[in-house]
Amino acid sequence: MNPTAFRRALVEAGHLLPLPHQGSWGRGADLERVVLGFVARLDAMYSDRPQRTYHFGPLMPQESFQRTGYVASQTQLVGSVDVFRGGDEEHRALLAECETGEDWTHRLEPAGLMFASAACHPLYAALAGQQVSGSYLIFGHAFRHEPSEDPFRTITFRQKESVRVGTHEDCVEHRDHYLERAAALLTSLGLDVEAEVANDPFFGRAGKLMARGQRAAELKRELSVQAYGPGHPRTALASANLHGPHFATAFDLRLPDGSPAETACTGFGVERVALALLLVHGLDVREWPAEVRRELAL
Amino acid sequence: MNPTAFRRALVEAGHLLPLPHQGSWGRGADLERVVLGFVARLDAMYSDRPQRTYHFGPLMPQESFQRTGYVASQTQLVGSVDVFRGGDEEHRALLAECETGEDWTHRLEPAGLMFASAACHPLYAALAGQQVSGSYLIFGHAFRHEPSEDPFRTITFRQKESVRVGTHEDCVEHRDHYLERAAALLTSLGLDVEAEVANDPFFGRAGKLMARGQRAAELKRELSVQAYGPGHPRTALASANLHGPHFATAFDLRLPDGSPAETACTGFGVERVALALLLVHGLDVREWPAEVRRELAL
Repeated sequence: MNPTAFRRALVEAGHLLPLPHQGSWGRGADLERVVLGFVARLDAMYSDRPQRTYHFGPLMPQESFQRTGYVASQTQLVGSVDVFRGGDEEHRALLAECETGEDWTHRLEPAGLMFASAACHPLYAALAGQQVSGSYLIFGHAFRHEPSEDPFRTITFRQKESVRVGTHEDCVEHRDHYLERAAALLTSLGLDVEAEVANDPFFGRAGKLMARGQRAAELKRELSVQAYGPGHPRTALASANLHGPHFATAFDLRLPDGSPAETACTGFGVERVALALLLVHGLDVREWPAEVRRELAL
Repeated sequence: MNPTAFRRALVEAGHLLPLPHQGSWGRGADLERVVLGFVARLDAMYSDRPQRTYHFGPLMPQESFQRTGYVASQTQLVGSVDVFRGGDEEHRALLAECETGEDWTHRLEPAGLMFASAACHPLYAALAGQQVSGSYLIFGHAFRHEPSEDPFRTITFRQKESVRVGTHEDCVEHRDHYLERAAALLTSLGLDVEAEVANDPFFGRAGKLMARGQRAAELKRELSVQAYGPGHPRTALASANLHGPHFATAFDLRLPDGSPAETACTGFGVERVALALLLVHGLDVREWPAEVRRELAL
């Protein structure tokens, strides 16, 4: 099946409700039940260690987001929020433009808020300046402006992540520990995942060098499936990332003894996993293998 | 307790994790469990009638959003998304501005996406041009740009709504049916709610007239609590709204026989309900009344 056929089948089965903008969908009840069943399964997986648990909305302060470096490195994917702060006069002008189909958004100004590019970004902002160590279980939103007809690629989506703040060794251990368990979990659900060295989609010419460096140091590993068969790019369902001191330095995170911290995270795109399960086990969740239904409490 | 004291207590108890922007928070594990327990309780309440169930993300197409009329009527609350579409040259200029602390967001342009102001807005966009009738159970996001220190007032939040598309009589019946059940549910959880005639926060001088008309026709009713005691404004937890032909005309929704439709919705701000419960029953959910814990599966 190719992306177009998969999209059509998902819409026909009621799993996706199209909105008139690429990469923007409503989700049906069964798809959401699979997502939440998988999230609960991840909670169980991550409960082998103490984790402080936080949930975040889609937005974070612009000033905090700038510290992530993503404005510079993944510029083509970031999203900023504009709002109206004018009075009656500007309002009249805006209305006139809106009614005649002109651009009215030039009357808006930045709210000082941006979308988190990954669910863990608001965590670093919340911990900024603190001396901390440990694991954090995060459920939140990611925004990536890459409109696409492929149902796996939506502009906003949810991520469940475990973030480690610790020494370099703590971070490597956390990455290896959960990468192994993530692969085992996805495999147990019938997904034929492979762990690959990967890179983030860095912007432009300088970005090519960054991507090469990231791959050479094997800082990013993805668990991906061959969703559409040979000849199509693989689809990443989860990734495990060593950030080194990148976020810790940017947000002034130090260990309890005052020494510099590093961070790592392992995260899942939870809608992607649900869609991959629909592709493998069929569009009717009532006919999925009993073991998979049991694992996801369907 | 006043809003400042409540905010401090929530942060101290670990229910809220402050982000450095008014109205922007992380939520702790217990708060989120209360939210999801209440959402499940709403699913049960709404299951007395057949409802097609959809989940939406925070964004919807700009073109669709403009049809809601909110750009004109609640201009001060709406949010628009900007993204970067430039090449290497614009990227270099943006980077320089970002590094020297200048405004770099002027290099962004509208993505053609806006925040839904209510969880039901994307539904109308998805149904546009169709002949339909029935009830829709929606879980989604709302964005209202009203930064505040009051923990009840966040910039993004989640709403669970039942939307009716039908005749005028269908809509009035749906409103009355679920307003009564919503009040009974909130009361059974220990919340001292009152049903009040209310109005939307329409923009500017013309908005005052719209608000007066909406109140005179009793189109909006809110279930609110006196969260902070006498002298403080009441806090709305749920609202029941008759839209008349407003959305149906804007999105060309007709009944199966081709005649014009009307719409109505009853919606809950689910984080608000969870916070109201913390205010009434105390900050330690383990010490809440057994009946409330049972109702919310805590």
